[in-house]
Amino acid sequence: MFDVSEVTVVAVDVFGTTVDWRRGVLDGLRAHHENDFDHAALVDAWRERYLPAVAQINSGEREWANLDAVHREALDQCLAEFGVSGIDAEARERMVRAWDALPPWPDAAEGLAELRRDFLVVALSNGGFAQLAHVVKGAGLGFDAIVSAENVGAYKPDRRAYLNAAKLLDVEPRNVLMVAAHTWDIHGARDAGFHTAFVERPGEKGPDRPADTAGNTDCDLAAVSFTDLADRLRALRDSQE
Amino acid sequence: MFDVSEVTVVAVDVFGTTVDWRRGVLDGLRAHHENDFDHAALVDAWRERYLPAVAQINSGEREWANLDAVHREALDQCLAEFGVSGIDAEARERMVRAWDALPPWPDAAEGLAELRRDFLVVALSNGGFAQLAHVVKGAGLGFDAIVSAENVGAYKPDRRAYLNAAKLLDVEPRNVLMVAAHTWDIHGARDAGFHTAFVERPGEKGPDRPADTAGNTDCDLAAVSFTDLADRLRALRDSQE
Repeated sequence: MFDVSEVTVVAVDVFGTTVDWRRGVLDGLRAHHENDFDHAALVDAWRERYLPAVAQINSGEREWANLDAVHREALDQCLAEFGVSGIDAEARERMVRAWDALPPWPDAAEGLAELRRDFLVVALSNGGFAQLAHVVKGAGLGFDAIVSAENVGAYKPDRRAYLNAAKLLDVEPRNVLMVAAHTWDIHGARDAGFHTAFVERPGEKGPDRPADTAGNTDCDLAAVSFTDLADRLRALRDSQE
Repeated sequence: MFDVSEVTVVAVDVFGTTVDWRRGVLDGLRAHHENDFDHAALVDAWRERYLPAVAQINSGEREWANLDAVHREALDQCLAEFGVSGIDAEARERMVRAWDALPPWPDAAEGLAELRRDFLVVALSNGGFAQLAHVVKGAGLGFDAIVSAENVGAYKPDRRAYLNAAKLLDVEPRNVLMVAAHTWDIHGARDAGFHTAFVERPGEKGPDRPADTAGNTDCDLAAVSFTDLADRLRALRDSQE
C-alpha cells in the first residue's frame, strides 16, 4: 500500500467523477430542443468523440483548442451523423453550454469537504478553466483551486497534464493523489508518478453501457464514493502513524 | 456610475486586500528568527522591492519568475542591506514561506461569501498559484477559482495580466469588476477595460506609513470592507433594475 503521509494534494477529476455529465447534458438538451431525435444516443456519441479529439491535440496533430471548442466541433459531427438539421449556430452554442451546468453525484460535496480538512484538494480536469469554474460552482462543490488542461497546456491522460499540474502546485508527483472514475485517467496519473484512487460511478455511462471499474486498473485505492474515499484515507493514515 | 448588470465576474486582489500580509509575514519572521534586527523595517523594505522586480519581468528585462522566486531574491538583497548575517539557505526559504500563511482581514470571508451569491468570484493576484492556494485556504477565504500571474504569464499592473485573466474566464473585460486596495492595481485594471472597486485597508502598511486611499484613484466604486462592497453592489443593482 502506498505511504499516505507522502500525499499533500488530492487532484480530482470532474466530468463523471464528481458530476453526472450524462444526466446534466441530457437535461440541458431536452429543455431546449424539442427536435425529434434520440437525445441519449446523441449525448453518448458526443462523449465518444472526446478522447480521440484530445488525443489528436496531445499528439500535436491538431492545434490547441479548449474543451468548449472540442465539444462544438464534435457536436457538429454528431448532428450530421444523426441526420439532424435545423439547429442554428446559436442553438448549437446553447447545446455546448449544457456541459457548464451538471448535477453533482450525491456524495461529492460532503466527501470533498472531508478531504479538504486533511489535504489541498484541487479539481484537475480536461474542461476549460471558465467551464470548470461554472460547473463546480453550479454543482455546489468546494475545491481549494481549479486546474484546467487549459492552464497546463495538455490534456489528460498525457503525462504533461499531470506533471505540469504538480509543478503549478509546487509539489512532486508522488505528493499527489489523483482521484478519478476512469481507467485512462488512473493509468495516465500513475504513468506520471502520481498515487491514484478510483471512485466507482456505475451509472456514469447510462443504463445500457458499463462504466469503468476499479478492477480494470492498478489504482492504489478503490472507493465507492467520495465520503468512502475520505474514510479510507483517514483509516490508512491512522494505521500508518 | 457603471452598469452593474454588465458584471458577471468579480476579480479580487489578495495580498493587502483580503489578507494582512504585513502582520502575517512579521509574525512568521518573529516565530522563527530571534536574530537581533528590526523585523518590521525588514518586512517593509522587502515589500518595497516587489513592484520594481515584477516591473522588470513585465518589461522583458528579466525572465519570468514566480513570486516565491522574486521574494527570495529580494530577501537576500534586504538581508545584505540590513547587514544581517548568519541566516542560511534553509532559514531563508522558511522566511519566504511566511508569505504562504497570512491572516484574513476580519470582513473578508463573510464579504466574499456574499459576493459569491451574485457573481463568479475569483482571486486575481501576483502570487504564485500554489502560494495563493495555501494563502486562501489558510485564511479561510472562499473563492470560486484562483487565477495567478503564473497562469496568465504577466504580473499586474501590466494590461496582459488583466486581459489574459478575462480570456481564461471567457468574458469581456467590461464583464469583470476588479477589487483591490492599491492605486496601481485599480489603474491597471481600468486601463485593461475592467470595472473597478477600491476597498480601503488603512492599516495595510503598518502604523507609520499611509495606505493607498480610494481618493487617489478613479475607481467606479469605493468601499470600506468586503461586506460593505457586497451591500453597495446589491444596492446599485436594485437601483438600476
